[in-house]
Amino acid sequence: MIAHILSTGDEVLLGDIVDTNSGFLCHALKTMGIRVEKITAVGDDVKTICTAIRDISLQATVCFVTGGLGPTPDDLTALACSQAAEDRLELNHDALASMTAYFAKKGFHLTCDNEKQAMLPSSSKMLVNHNGTAPGFYMTIHQCLFFFMPGVPAEMKMMFEKEVKTVLSRVFDLNEGILIERLTVFGLPESKIGGLLKPFNDNFPGVQLGFRVDFPLIEVKIVATGSIHDRQSALSGLARAKQWVAGQLGNKVVSEAGLTLVQEVGRLLTLEKKTLAVAESCTGGLISNLITDVAGSSDYFLFSGVTYSNDAKMNILNVKKKTLMAHGAVHEQTALEMAQGARLCAGADVAVSTTGIAGPGGGSLEKPVGMVCIGLATPSGATAETYCFSFDDRFLNKKMFAMTALNRLRRYLLSLSKTS
Amino acid sequence: MIAHILSTGDEVLLGDIVDTNSGFLCHALKTMGIRVEKITAVGDDVKTICTAIRDISLQATVCFVTGGLGPTPDDLTALACSQAAEDRLELNHDALASMTAYFAKKGFHLTCDNEKQAMLPSSSKMLVNHNGTAPGFYMTIHQCLFFFMPGVPAEMKMMFEKEVKTVLSRVFDLNEGILIERLTVFGLPESKIGGLLKPFNDNFPGVQLGFRVDFPLIEVKIVATGSIHDRQSALSGLARAKQWVAGQLGNKVVSEAGLTLVQEVGRLLTLEKKTLAVAESCTGGLISNLITDVAGSSDYFLFSGVTYSNDAKMNILNVKKKTLMAHGAVHEQTALEMAQGARLCAGADVAVSTTGIAGPGGGSLEKPVGMVCIGLATPSGATAETYCFSFDDRFLNKKMFAMTALNRLRRYLLSLSKTS
Repeated sequence: MIAHILSTGDEVLLGDIVDTNSGFLCHALKTMGIRVEKITAVGDDVKTICTAIRDISLQATVCFVTGGLGPTPDDLTALACSQAAEDRLELNHDALASMTAYFAKKGFHLTCDNEKQAMLPSSSKMLVNHNGTAPGFYMTIHQCLFFFMPGVPAEMKMMFEKEVKTVLSRVFDLNEGILIERLTVFGLPESKIGGLLKPFNDNFPGVQLGFRVDFPLIEVKIVATGSIHDRQSALSGLARAKQWVAGQLGNKVVSEAGLTLVQEVGRLLTLEKKTLAVAESCTGGLISNLITDVAGSSDYFLFSGVTYSNDAKMNILNVKKKTLMAHGAVHEQTALEMAQGARLCAGADVAVSTTGIAGPGGGSLEKPVGMVCIGLATPSGATAETYCFSFDDRFLNKKMFAMTALNRLRRYLLSLSKTS
Repeated sequence: MIAHILSTGDEVLLGDIVDTNSGFLCHALKTMGIRVEKITAVGDDVKTICTAIRDISLQATVCFVTGGLGPTPDDLTALACSQAAEDRLELNHDALASMTAYFAKKGFHLTCDNEKQAMLPSSSKMLVNHNGTAPGFYMTIHQCLFFFMPGVPAEMKMMFEKEVKTVLSRVFDLNEGILIERLTVFGLPESKIGGLLKPFNDNFPGVQLGFRVDFPLIEVKIVATGSIHDRQSALSGLARAKQWVAGQLGNKVVSEAGLTLVQEVGRLLTLEKKTLAVAESCTGGLISNLITDVAGSSDYFLFSGVTYSNDAKMNILNVKKKTLMAHGAVHEQTALEMAQGARLCAGADVAVSTTGIAGPGGGSLEKPVGMVCIGLATPSGATAETYCFSFDDRFLNKKMFAMTALNRLRRYLLSLSKTS
């Protein structure tokens, strides 16, 4: 099956909105075992849409079209479709009935503008819109089955889930979904990972490697390709490939289950029944923001002291004045005392801290932009280490600092789980 | 000029990431007066990429390609391009020199895998990557000028701004830059803004409105269209249009200079010479993370206490046990005491606080997901207010809560600047 997506609407091409519909469809189709080969986005122009539909009808077996079904004059998809199919628009009574019912539910009456939305290509069948007025439709043009859905994400998603999926599974013989494994890697650049995994293709035919950078994490995806008739042998091939990849990347693998670094830290804290406090200077709240993005983090996360000023470091985290006077804010001793202070004042089992120079200003020869000291306080004592990165960018540095601190914490938690 | 975008990479077609690069490019090109006609996205397959490039070379005059320039085996764009152009790959010495310099700066050595990235089509010219290793390139195929850029957003954006724009303005006769004004709006949905500004088009011919949603902020752009020969009259037309828009949107306009909400708060704090402390529960560090994303924020930002646990609220922010027992963590009295506590313990002029239910769990009939109490403490006393939003999504709620708190702070700072 060759699947395409066609997204219509000026707003995407003008850069006013990002086309999230296509991402949703790719993801939803993947879980049904359908891999999208091409996405096309065009503006609100009948001729352009018509040409795009005709091109796709000769290349694809199924196509999902979004947008252009509304009541306004720039909603032209049904017209373009009828031209591409050499069909004509006519009043679709199912569509009119569905719209009348929707309006009645909302206590409104149909207007002439709305009736336009029930004018569909004569050979099409209607798809109910549960979240809005514009009905969708589906029809075959050449060898390709087209589904036309609204552009409003909530309407499109509901129509896809409740209507399109049913038609799809009736028409196509779908297998159970693509087999895929994900490993999260931290601390290796993409080129290094590529080098370490170079022998992969020769060693594992029928399995494919992919990479996704979510700076500074890299997700390595291992995908069983082709149609999966013998599911059991595909699964064991995938497992062998994964084991080899994990071996090549060693302790740079943060999660073999595709968790992000902060999700893995959350998992380990929960597993070890430990609570966490954080003390942040240069990361400015990013670590706690990442931690609290995970639902349920209140089970283990107690407190972060974002102490940007030296006074806050002293008054809230009990960093010694002597330390700050002797070494300044960016120093291992300061990081160590920050972690100790956060752990104590929050009554947490473990605490991490960051103090460094995110830039773009504030760097010196001795303490350049990109330098960070990371502290770790545990029941058995506190330590601190210095790392240097060479980004000029404040965002990249904050992110790198935060991930390095989370990774320090992960390694500590992992050592607990290995000894227990 | 007919402009196309080609986005390559399995991750978009598998639905793992949303293609934000194309949105960025559409938006950036529009401000240069270039309107994108079509966006195409294909996976990491040489033949598919090659066919797409060849098709576009016959349809467009300029095309922006992203992705597939990395060092790993699934980075195939240069190869596909050379096939489409019937060219060959050869070592590009400019590219190699640029990569060597980048690596030297980072203290690394080039590997063979990296050298692959310097293999470019022989008729292409190199584009410097300021934020990563993969060089870009540009070349003409048939009648179309292609720019090839990396897929990592930070690398692509920098390359577009610093390299591609220069080549573009040299090759094409672009006018001097579009005249544009930006207003940042908070607290009105896009449809409402659209309604309030409906008479715009009739009132201001030659000026065009645009909207860009950066949830929950909306940027209203006012653009002088057409070629700007009489710059002075275009500027005064733009100023009149801006004044009218600002009048229609009233106090929902956060900045008339296109600043984001947190940048505007930073500007006002600097202007009023005030220092800030924050106390965060449900926003989990997002407010301080946003504040510290602004370079120079250490001039006014002292401390944020991210107090997720009740103990931390009591021990660090001095919230009264009685208050928590009587009202719970999500209550105006708690928010008020949190703000007071943060202000006092950090020695700040002003403090804001948040406590609420971000979800997806933890809601009740009385205190539903989406409810937040926001406190404000100033030299003249402390207040707190409750807001309810109806998002089920943890990220959206955190963002909405953080922005609402920052907006509360902005209104206070604005009242100071008006009375002073």
